[in-house]
Amino acid sequence: MIHIDNFKTIVDKYNVIFFDAFGVIKNYQGLVPGIEKTFEYLKEQNKEYYIVTNDASRSPVQLASSYHKMGLHAITPNRIISSGMLTKEYLYLKVPEGMVAYLGTEGSAHYIESLGLHPMPISEVNDSNIDQIKALLFLDDEGFDWQQGVNTAVNLLRKRTIPAIVANTDHAYPVTIHDLSVAIGGLAMMVENIVGKKFIRFGKPDSQMFMFAYDLIRDQRPISKKEIVMVGDTLHTDILGGNKFGLDTVLVLSGNTLPKDVDTRITSTGIVPTYICETAVVEKDMF
Amino acid sequence: MIHIDNFKTIVDKYNVIFFDAFGVIKNYQGLVPGIEKTFEYLKEQNKEYYIVTNDASRSPVQLASSYHKMGLHAITPNRIISSGMLTKEYLYLKVPEGMVAYLGTEGSAHYIESLGLHPMPISEVNDSNIDQIKALLFLDDEGFDWQQGVNTAVNLLRKRTIPAIVANTDHAYPVTIHDLSVAIGGLAMMVENIVGKKFIRFGKPDSQMFMFAYDLIRDQRPISKKEIVMVGDTLHTDILGGNKFGLDTVLVLSGNTLPKDVDTRITSTGIVPTYICETAVVEKDMF
Amino acid sequence: MIHIDNFKTIVDKYNVIFFDAFGVIKNYQGLVPGIEKTFEYLKEQNKEYYIVTNDASRSPVQLASSYHKMGLHAITPNRIISSGMLTKEYLYLKVPEGMVAYLGTEGSAHYIESLGLHPMPISEVNDSNIDQIKALLFLDDEGFDWQQGVNTAVNLLRKRTIPAIVANTDHAYPVTIHDLSVAIGGLAMMVENIVGKKFIRFGKPDSQMFMFAYDLIRDQRPISKKEIVMVGDTLHTDILGGNKFGLDTVLVLSGNTLPKDVDTRITSTGIVPTYICETAVVEKDMF
Amino acid sequence: MIHIDNFKTIVDKYNVIFFDAFGVIKNYQGLVPGIEKTFEYLKEQNKEYYIVTNDASRSPVQLASSYHKMGLHAITPNRIISSGMLTKEYLYLKVPEGMVAYLGTEGSAHYIESLGLHPMPISEVNDSNIDQIKALLFLDDEGFDWQQGVNTAVNLLRKRTIPAIVANTDHAYPVTIHDLSVAIGGLAMMVENIVGKKFIRFGKPDSQMFMFAYDLIRDQRPISKKEIVMVGDTLHTDILGGNKFGLDTVLVLSGNTLPKDVDTRITSTGIVPTYICETAVVEKDMF
Repeated sequence: MIHIDNFKTIVDKYNVIFFDAFGVIKNYQGLVPGIEKTFEYLKEQNKEYYIVTNDASRSPVQLASSYHKMGLHAITPNRIISSGMLTKEYLYLKVPEGMVAYLGTEGSAHYIESLGLHPMPISEVNDSNIDQIKALLFLDDEGFDWQQGVNTAVNLLRKRTIPAIVANTDHAYPVTIHDLSVAIGGLAMMVENIVGKKFIRFGKPDSQMFMFAYDLIRDQRPISKKEIVMVGDTLHTDILGGNKFGLDTVLVLSGNTLPKDVDTRITSTGIVPTYICETAVVEKDMF
Repeated sequence: MIHIDNFKTIVDKYNVIFFDAFGVIKNYQGLVPGIEKTFEYLKEQNKEYYIVTNDASRSPVQLASSYHKMGLHAITPNRIISSGMLTKEYLYLKVPEGMVAYLGTEGSAHYIESLGLHPMPISEVNDSNIDQIKALLFLDDEGFDWQQGVNTAVNLLRKRTIPAIVANTDHAYPVTIHDLSVAIGGLAMMVENIVGKKFIRFGKPDSQMFMFAYDLIRDQRPISKKEIVMVGDTLHTDILGGNKFGLDTVLVLSGNTLPKDVDTRITSTGIVPTYICETAVVEKDMF
Repeated sequence: MIHIDNFKTIVDKYNVIFFDAFGVIKNYQGLVPGIEKTFEYLKEQNKEYYIVTNDASRSPVQLASSYHKMGLHAITPNRIISSGMLTKEYLYLKVPEGMVAYLGTEGSAHYIESLGLHPMPISEVNDSNIDQIKALLFLDDEGFDWQQGVNTAVNLLRKRTIPAIVANTDHAYPVTIHDLSVAIGGLAMMVENIVGKKFIRFGKPDSQMFMFAYDLIRDQRPISKKEIVMVGDTLHTDILGGNKFGLDTVLVLSGNTLPKDVDTRITSTGIVPTYICETAVVEKDMF
Repeated sequence: MIHIDNFKTIVDKYNVIFFDAFGVIKNYQGLVPGIEKTFEYLKEQNKEYYIVTNDASRSPVQLASSYHKMGLHAITPNRIISSGMLTKEYLYLKVPEGMVAYLGTEGSAHYIESLGLHPMPISEVNDSNIDQIKALLFLDDEGFDWQQGVNTAVNLLRKRTIPAIVANTDHAYPVTIHDLSVAIGGLAMMVENIVGKKFIRFGKPDSQMFMFAYDLIRDQRPISKKEIVMVGDTLHTDILGGNKFGLDTVLVLSGNTLPKDVDTRITSTGIVPTYICETAVVEKDMF
């Protein structure tokens, strides 16, 4: 029923490629086999590329370094756009100074520290400091005790009218081929529902994510949205968000969306990619 | 604006009184002061009464015993209708045998054991026994590690098409005068949202809760819904559920709904009690 | 993958059969072919049966008469339990007198009139009578102009704190083999969302619907839920509601759920019928 | 409790002002009295300003002309950013040719026509042309019969996997001081819920709306988000959206948010404007 396109043919039609990370470039076992050939081809062809990822657990430098360790050197910090960076921009513009409480690892708090704000782990929030907290960030599902952390977050937001920012819109993420973990976006959704306040969410499918990458290019040269294609494995984030921002989109079947389900899922969600490819790998002999 | 009624005058008009527990009879500090006088009056006047509670953490015998320890002997196990009892009835009718996984304390598992089913704490679910599990129960927010328990529940329900039963519909409950804790109903809502399956919920405002109490009376004598009044402190559970079941309702201001908010809350929710009283205490000199 | 059961074998195991109407007994073309044989068999075998339907557009007498016209005389008014009857019981218990505004046909208003209340079509609500209205009923999607009716309903509920009752929980219903119409439950959901108040809904899967039928039997003789089986074509109403009430359930594939989808739908919703049958027809040669 | 700021003092701190239209510049009776003085002051002070509005019922030329008729000549088409323009950009980028069905007035269809696409009113969609339709637009709540239009939209989206675009995210809008009308965004929400597909929505609080205005300025000169302030009367659209995009925000009390409610609404929603002003009027003697 569905038409499977050749990824190289698609790449040849655009000047800029946006890639989702998980399910496209890497998975729980490491790099998607052969993906380095894609980046060789992109360089050879002088194409621009960016990684657009709902990951606020680490800084772009740390994210890039994790690709380098796996042997992929083409991904440099300046090519990574993360929902963490949008969170940082928000703090820069809207929270000039003070304490910012967070749920996540110590590492995830670098977005707060790098602005000169004072990060406070949710476990340390108590009656003596609650009045000095200027914002609450949901950064990562690791690094804190869920029961203590979630309950403290609920009571902090009931007592204080401060912004609550969710730096990752995903509700769950794969940890093995069979298993999911609830993501910080899932915990944040529960807290939001209980306190009844409106949270601020950064991450695909929200267009602010795409705009951030688009603006980076635009700062250097004129660009039209027609020159860009978004490549992702998830209909509800990568494809919906890319479509809404006005980009052409490629759904790859190497992650969240399985070949046997793709037809049903497109029909039932109404989210239609411009192209469908098995993977984002450009085969060597195709060069 | 609002009219405050005298609780004794209301009691005099009905033959049967349904009481919510938390915020009406007891709070985080113990019994609501003077509430024993209400039950003395009910006995004197030969009125029937039942406690209708979203509490699945303990058996009716344990719940009654906790009132006795606080000095209130009028509440006996046969007068307690809990969402745990509906869960037990469901298991009795729909899960004839096998293992039932649960999130909650060991104590909350008595509903499973008392039917001859085999309770399995969520922490013990693994690949070797997952295929033998017949149902998953959300019983209590205590007794398990949230991160491990919630993630195991998510993966169990993704792998197995079994019923998921929530024995307490509340999303949060008060632990001190200032603080809430997320209830098992809140965690279950997050898991349901992530796995995308339909859970079965027992507890007010669902009418099955009221029907259970109504049926207990009806087994002994003819009864009309017009003879019953429901007394509670929460618009969304006690009052909405009582109204929908066709009962007259009393909102008391000794718990969840504060005197200063009652007017706004009724108008904004559209949930209107038949009467509003400060507390459910019948003053001695009123006898 | 799925096991298809023989409907006669199932019927033989129970004393009481609850049938959904649309998709089980009738469809947009008339009776399901052969369904009259089922009712002959039920009579022969002395089985009790009830029609449990989310239909508030007509009275039980009118509904029964529509079956008689199609040639099915086994369905008499006393065997029909409709969400309209629950609405009527609610009005009887909670709205003693006065004007009741409604969206629906004049015919659907008989539930209001038969109680001595004064029905007022939504088109006649205006500033001069708005203060006398005691409740708003959503009865049927026909009989009024949608734009005028929906806007009047929104403003009525913003100005007056009165109960809003939805007599049919369905959001849409089939009008031909290819086409749906939005049902009054769909319009009510939109109005509820806009005014932000809590509506009261009657109809499957809510257990009050099953309880009403159960109570009719119980008034005459002792009955256990284990003696009853619910037969329906829709997982989210008939099967979910039947399961939750503690009944065994039969999904038939003659309506909403197509044979090719049944496996996926059960897995994705987690709503599992006890049995699956092609239709509810008992073949003659099986007697 | 709340601090009321002087609007002129705020204007003096920023280089660019974004204004919501309804409730800020105009209301159901015409212009907000005195608002022309604000625009005189802005010109005098050489401030840039844009109208950022969830209105897709008319083109910027028609919208500007309606202000001119009321006597406000400062608002020119190039200063109006509407959700209709985002819809037009989407069509330009993603729907290269063909028929586009729409719900709305003939006037609202100009966004389709101006791109060389063929607009088709929802009333004309039928079995003979349904296969040629490339997208469905929700533009305006006027111009079509709701029952026929909504049901046709439901069936179109069930039969065809095409994008559904909502050009106005509002669910309702004020028509007099006392009454609301359901907006096209409210109808679209009902249709989306019934067909279960994902719609694309343009309009505040979505950041794409703010980005469009921001990009217009950026095309001409460098700009920082710190130079811009967003002025609106609605917490959930103007203030939430402005805050999330990183702008400072002014809530004015001349529209949706009443002075008596502002404190409660901010606390209960957690949406906090940078400033609160009675109106956006700059008084003459303040110049």
